[in-house]
Amino acid sequence: MPRPSNKAQIVESGLAVFHEFGYHASGVQAVVDHAGVPKGSFYNHFKSKEDLGLEVLKAYWMRFEDLRAALRISDQPPLDRIDAHLAAFSVDETGCLIGNLTSEMANEPQFRDALQGVYASWIADFEACILEGQKDGSIRDDETAKTMAEFIVTALEGAVLKRKLEDDEQTLINFRKTMLRFLRAS
Amino acid sequence: MPRPSNKAQIVESGLAVFHEFGYHASGVQAVVDHAGVPKGSFYNHFKSKEDLGLEVLKAYWMRFEDLRAALRISDQPPLDRIDAHLAAFSVDETGCLIGNLTSEMANEPQFRDALQGVYASWIADFEACILEGQKDGSIRDDETAKTMAEFIVTALEGAVLKRKLEDDEQTLINFRKTMLRFLRAS
Repeated sequence: MPRPSNKAQIVESGLAVFHEFGYHASGVQAVVDHAGVPKGSFYNHFKSKEDLGLEVLKAYWMRFEDLRAALRISDQPPLDRIDAHLAAFSVDETGCLIGNLTSEMANEPQFRDALQGVYASWIADFEACILEGQKDGSIRDDETAKTMAEFIVTALEGAVLKRKLEDDEQTLINFRKTMLRFLRAS
Repeated sequence: MPRPSNKAQIVESGLAVFHEFGYHASGVQAVVDHAGVPKGSFYNHFKSKEDLGLEVLKAYWMRFEDLRAALRISDQPPLDRIDAHLAAFSVDETGCLIGNLTSEMANEPQFRDALQGVYASWIADFEACILEGQKDGSIRDDETAKTMAEFIVTALEGAVLKRKLEDDEQTLINFRKTMLRFLRAS
């Protein structure tokens, strides 16, 4: 029976390899090499590279669970929570795996479903936060919370994408500052 | 001597194939099959798939030349020009090739240089338009034109990316409406 830790290690390595080199550019061999496990072990746990890809997306998404919870429930003012959430994405020059997989895999039905679910729940987290800000008067209310939430998530993915071409975080810092300015009630 | 039209046909096919399936997922064979030319002909014109990829990026970018010129010089009010430019991106569920290549190829030096150039000139077009809007009082001036221009381009790439997961254009329509609302001077 395979050790349970092998599966976790393969997911971890899949995440690292897909994130750095892209999904299509990475083979199963590169993932098992990174994980230091034999290729046979891979097929004990996963039917295919697609199967791993979906597990990797799930694992990546779970990493942000605390960050997303902090959008919903917090003592911080809503705009500060949004700023903190956006700032958490300002450190990574490999882009966001969600955006990268959207670019490469949007037309594959299973990935499409999984990615749609990811975006929908992320948008719902922002929506809850924005609703609070609209109630306390800190966030503009000439647009619905849902529309603004969707705007933030999609725009953030674009900014994180462009970050891949940058040598520093200046674009993301400017992006964050501008987004907050746009959201603030006048 | 190879017919000059073969090269153009290969670039055209490269654009179609890379755009639909992604760069890494598409081989030279798929491109020459699409172009209906023998593989040998490919290597008369291109040293490598990378070489073709850079030509494809250039050709894709040239397609938008008129659209970008209309941001700079036009009788239309600046906000209407921005709206028209964003609307031109609302029809394509394969995403934007610039964004797709950024996702896949940002770390390849030649692509990185080419993509940085593309973004910089696109941002400059928006900047010229925003400066005009700030002068005539239609666009807010609490942020520099350059920072807002960069915000628009990066956010648009994110919205076009998310469009790949959508069955209709509603996200892009909402995106455009929200962006215009955010830019408008109060």
